[in-house]
Amino acid sequence: MRVTIIGVGLIGGSMALSLKEKKFAPKIIGVDANKEHEQKALALGLVDEILPVKEAVQNADIIILAIPVNACVKLLPQILDLINKQVVIDTGSTKNNLIEAVKDHPKRGRFVATHPMWGTEYSGPEAAVRNAFTGKATIICNKEESDADALLLAEKLYETLGMYLVYMNAAAHDIHVAYVSHISHITSFALANTVLEKEKEEDAIFELASAGFESTVRLAKSNSAMWVPIFMQNKENVLDVLNEHISQLRKFKACLEKENYEYLQELIENANKIRRIIK
Amino acid sequence: MRVTIIGVGLIGGSMALSLKEKKFAPKIIGVDANKEHEQKALALGLVDEILPVKEAVQNADIIILAIPVNACVKLLPQILDLINKQVVIDTGSTKNNLIEAVKDHPKRGRFVATHPMWGTEYSGPEAAVRNAFTGKATIICNKEESDADALLLAEKLYETLGMYLVYMNAAAHDIHVAYVSHISHITSFALANTVLEKEKEEDAIFELASAGFESTVRLAKSNSAMWVPIFMQNKENVLDVLNEHISQLRKFKACLEKENYEYLQELIENANKIRRIIK
Repeated sequence: MRVTIIGVGLIGGSMALSLKEKKFAPKIIGVDANKEHEQKALALGLVDEILPVKEAVQNADIIILAIPVNACVKLLPQILDLINKQVVIDTGSTKNNLIEAVKDHPKRGRFVATHPMWGTEYSGPEAAVRNAFTGKATIICNKEESDADALLLAEKLYETLGMYLVYMNAAAHDIHVAYVSHISHITSFALANTVLEKEKEEDAIFELASAGFESTVRLAKSNSAMWVPIFMQNKENVLDVLNEHISQLRKFKACLEKENYEYLQELIENANKIRRIIK
Repeated sequence: MRVTIIGVGLIGGSMALSLKEKKFAPKIIGVDANKEHEQKALALGLVDEILPVKEAVQNADIIILAIPVNACVKLLPQILDLINKQVVIDTGSTKNNLIEAVKDHPKRGRFVATHPMWGTEYSGPEAAVRNAFTGKATIICNKEESDADALLLAEKLYETLGMYLVYMNAAAHDIHVAYVSHISHITSFALANTVLEKEKEEDAIFELASAGFESTVRLAKSNSAMWVPIFMQNKENVLDVLNEHISQLRKFKACLEKENYEYLQELIENANKIRRIIK
């Protein structure tokens, strides 16, 4: 299997490592808009060869797009223009806009919309991790719009990575990720800004930052080039969840202001039910 | 050194394990308001003996209070009534109220107000962890109000645990922990309630919960018996930080509503500065 990965950063680089290790592909062709990233990916052994987009596509059986979602919406139709029978998959965190962008493309069937549910707060080729995806879920969206053989190849790729598959339509996907991923990033960014606002006044306090603080704020290190486009493309769902989150925070605020500690206890005990979901 | 630990849960139990391992104390006497916890602490080998409070205090050189902060405010004056030359330390997450409660006590000098900055989202004797405190900070508050020999013994205890010491007055302590600990718990509780609200509608989505989600929401498993009293006792500071946090979240909301993606990028890039604080 000849594989081209467009975007050799955290996701593309980690995929490259695993696909070679699992012998899905004897060699990987890399493409990146950032020339430095291309050279780093080569130097780190994530990819074996750098080619211009057109040749990279022509020399592959499967093309993986691992670029920010705004870039992907623009590039995917151009990639579909270039292919013959190749399969194209994306790895983005939003799906509605992307699927809409290619719904009437004559090669739509060659594209499989996928979202491997793994990431870290780091980015770029150096952020790539070995065995990153094992045991995690990949969501495949609108599978009925993909050709049967293209879908099968995408499924085989993710199974090779040790992932399990979940099928969903694009609209449901975008709602769910707003809850289980996008809102976590917004709360983390906002929390970082809250404490950084304070830091202007007093420098010393942060040596005290505890493990709990680190855990809630670590996502605030995430890259704006990846996250602004996600929030743009999932604006309505993210706003819904963000409004709900602000109103949940206001309940804590009201409890403190009114010294209603019984209700505060209820709110915390309700939150404890998250133990059902995360072990 | 004879040590009595009152409250043999997460903090008291973990301390017991380390103090014995480091040979600070050949044996540990345990006391807990919960009889089941006393028996579990004994069965788990966290403590060597269970005694009633009065005898436990009389048979110790140092008494460690590791109980919820509301219970501590009530119990500390009673413990000071019982002691002769023993040293008493607390381990609570708020300090103003506690120090105020004993400021005119004739034995005030025997008490050292301390806050070891470590914890997990679990509670009870089974939550106790070996080598929990190594490399973390302990804050010692209003050290000038403690007798020199009492302070020295408390410092020796925390150094034995491998902790480094930070000195602060109680008011500054309570503000700082609102930023680096208490607000993280509130955002996590509120985030859990946000997604649990959604879960009522759709059950399946949580199998997708990613590592990022787990990280921001794990503190929501924390025990209300510990946290309600902390929020009560640090109400004003927590409200200040919570108001700031809600206003930071509103900035993200306004960016999305107005599609002001340049400012959204600025907000995220500002949040990225948290890299200075957490590595």
